[in-house]
Amino acid sequence: MFRSSINLKAPYLIFFGDVRDQLNAKTGLGVAHWAPERCAGQMKFSGCRIESGLPNLGLQEALKARVRTVIIGVAPTGGQLKETWLPPLLEFARAGIDIAAGLHSKLADIPELVKAAQSGGARLVDVRIPPANLPCGSGRRRTGKRVLTVGTDCAVGKKYSALALHRELVRRGIDATFRATGQTGIMIAGEGIPIDAVVADFVAGAAEVLSPDNDDAHWDVIEGQGSLVHPGYAGVTLGLMHGSQPDALVLCHDASRDSVLDVDGYFPIPPLDEFIDRALTAARLTNPECLCAGISVNTSMLTGDERAAYLEALTKKHGMPAVDPIAIGVHAIADYLLGQVR
Amino acid sequence: MFRSSINLKAPYLIFFGDVRDQLNAKTGLGVAHWAPERCAGQMKFSGCRIESGLPNLGLQEALKARVRTVIIGVAPTGGQLKETWLPPLLEFARAGIDIAAGLHSKLADIPELVKAAQSGGARLVDVRIPPANLPCGSGRRRTGKRVLTVGTDCAVGKKYSALALHRELVRRGIDATFRATGQTGIMIAGEGIPIDAVVADFVAGAAEVLSPDNDDAHWDVIEGQGSLVHPGYAGVTLGLMHGSQPDALVLCHDASRDSVLDVDGYFPIPPLDEFIDRALTAARLTNPECLCAGISVNTSMLTGDERAAYLEALTKKHGMPAVDPIAIGVHAIADYLLGQVR
Repeated sequence: MFRSSINLKAPYLIFFGDVRDQLNAKTGLGVAHWAPERCAGQMKFSGCRIESGLPNLGLQEALKARVRTVIIGVAPTGGQLKETWLPPLLEFARAGIDIAAGLHSKLADIPELVKAAQSGGARLVDVRIPPANLPCGSGRRRTGKRVLTVGTDCAVGKKYSALALHRELVRRGIDATFRATGQTGIMIAGEGIPIDAVVADFVAGAAEVLSPDNDDAHWDVIEGQGSLVHPGYAGVTLGLMHGSQPDALVLCHDASRDSVLDVDGYFPIPPLDEFIDRALTAARLTNPECLCAGISVNTSMLTGDERAAYLEALTKKHGMPAVDPIAIGVHAIADYLLGQVR
Repeated sequence: MFRSSINLKAPYLIFFGDVRDQLNAKTGLGVAHWAPERCAGQMKFSGCRIESGLPNLGLQEALKARVRTVIIGVAPTGGQLKETWLPPLLEFARAGIDIAAGLHSKLADIPELVKAAQSGGARLVDVRIPPANLPCGSGRRRTGKRVLTVGTDCAVGKKYSALALHRELVRRGIDATFRATGQTGIMIAGEGIPIDAVVADFVAGAAEVLSPDNDDAHWDVIEGQGSLVHPGYAGVTLGLMHGSQPDALVLCHDASRDSVLDVDGYFPIPPLDEFIDRALTAARLTNPECLCAGISVNTSMLTGDERAAYLEALTKKHGMPAVDPIAIGVHAIADYLLGQVR
């Protein structure tokens, strides 16, 4: 038996502290945007201008709202919890409210916080630490349907596209679950496995655990990681693909990018048809029926006219919907997916 | 800065204890076979019939021979160190001799052994635990030459073929290093990284660390892991390939196998030409010049005549040497490798 995944209890209070810019607050803003039903409020220090749309709650208000978890929604420079954040966090922990974070430094390495959590009966949940006792991947076919986002690079919208597709399926009354594989995704879903922190031998097995047997009509929408053409992370991507055994992939891309970012050397992104072929060849090891259900592109660098022409050309060339998930939405991909996979 | 790899000090004493069969003693026998120059002796209990060819040494003789490390050469049922093995191991540790093992249970979890090691100033080295602070893979091209064994499945001779090829290169006066990625390989080489125990995000980076910049004429012969068509381990294989950035692959195969073993379902091994194409496509991400230097096949299930015909057919079909590394040796692969990669 193994604990199948990290688990965060709602409702949340999103902690922004004294964060100054949107980029460093994107985890908390993402949770507020994608999981409003899990969020009771926020806490920010005076002077913090982040706008999540959630009400500000102090400890007493949080207790009244039955908050179960404080989510550290900030990525501080250096990855360390700031000293000035500690006093309110200690209060929450002493009051029995879990604290969850995905920082480089571990919550469990802060003795005061550990003591406060023990005294209050609260948990310190580090969403970068995968559950213990994950199995190796067996390749066993599972029931239910699965779609996985794959990317031409990191940071091309794999999480966003999966969340948008999940939301669209649910809107249509389809039984669907978003399956999180990264820290923000896990906070949004309230559960998941940080796949890139899993020991290599167990990555495919972790992905198998993440999307278990389900009803035939149920869809798991799985958040992809890395890229098959990234020299540092392709192994993670492949293990996640194999364990997910997806019925369909959604290819995520950034229209302004022709090579992989943040690497040492020039790693070109292959033409998308070639990329799709390679991704499907890889995915078909564990699901021979896997197909590509669409292309989800960040076109924010294009003008409106350029975008329309670009997406139309992609759609024609590849014979599948090509959308910008923010500017256009993923309706066309949902249509195609549901039409192709039965 | 990071410690680049596990490091074991020679000379070794190989501990066989009361092991009954060759299969459970294969780690120790492998070390004695491939690294006789690192082995001073063995210790086995009376009644143990394993024959490593090494002299039996007690503690006093081991000290005289300046033994630095006791290698647990046995894989006990259940993966636990046996109670009856502890008394001699405690003596060695108290005398300042390191103890190294690759068991499921950790040496550091045996309090008596920890105490003995502390009192003697000995290290307890678990070759299943990777070094800390490995980097992510950057894709930076390194100097020197590299060949990596890749397999159609697990247990098809990747370690054996790499060791045999390394030995053959050294015999020809070529400056070459065997790079170990698994526990027995690490014990043989005295250093290495257990690649499948590395956190997924760092697998390619670990492989980059394992075979650092070197002289232009130097060859690293890297031990492969897993298989690109194994539903549980392909991600490990791919990360190792990318980080190794090999100039050449050697394909390892078992002539009697048409599908992957120990998985849940039928995972066929593709035709070898297709397999080679896929492996080269993957490898060329980080080394566009990568080629396949030969096929190393376990043909132990074939008769002598069958073997000759089988290997001749493979050689003709693929236009590269095909050998059985045990029955025939890897000379032809070394010839082809050195002719093709300059």
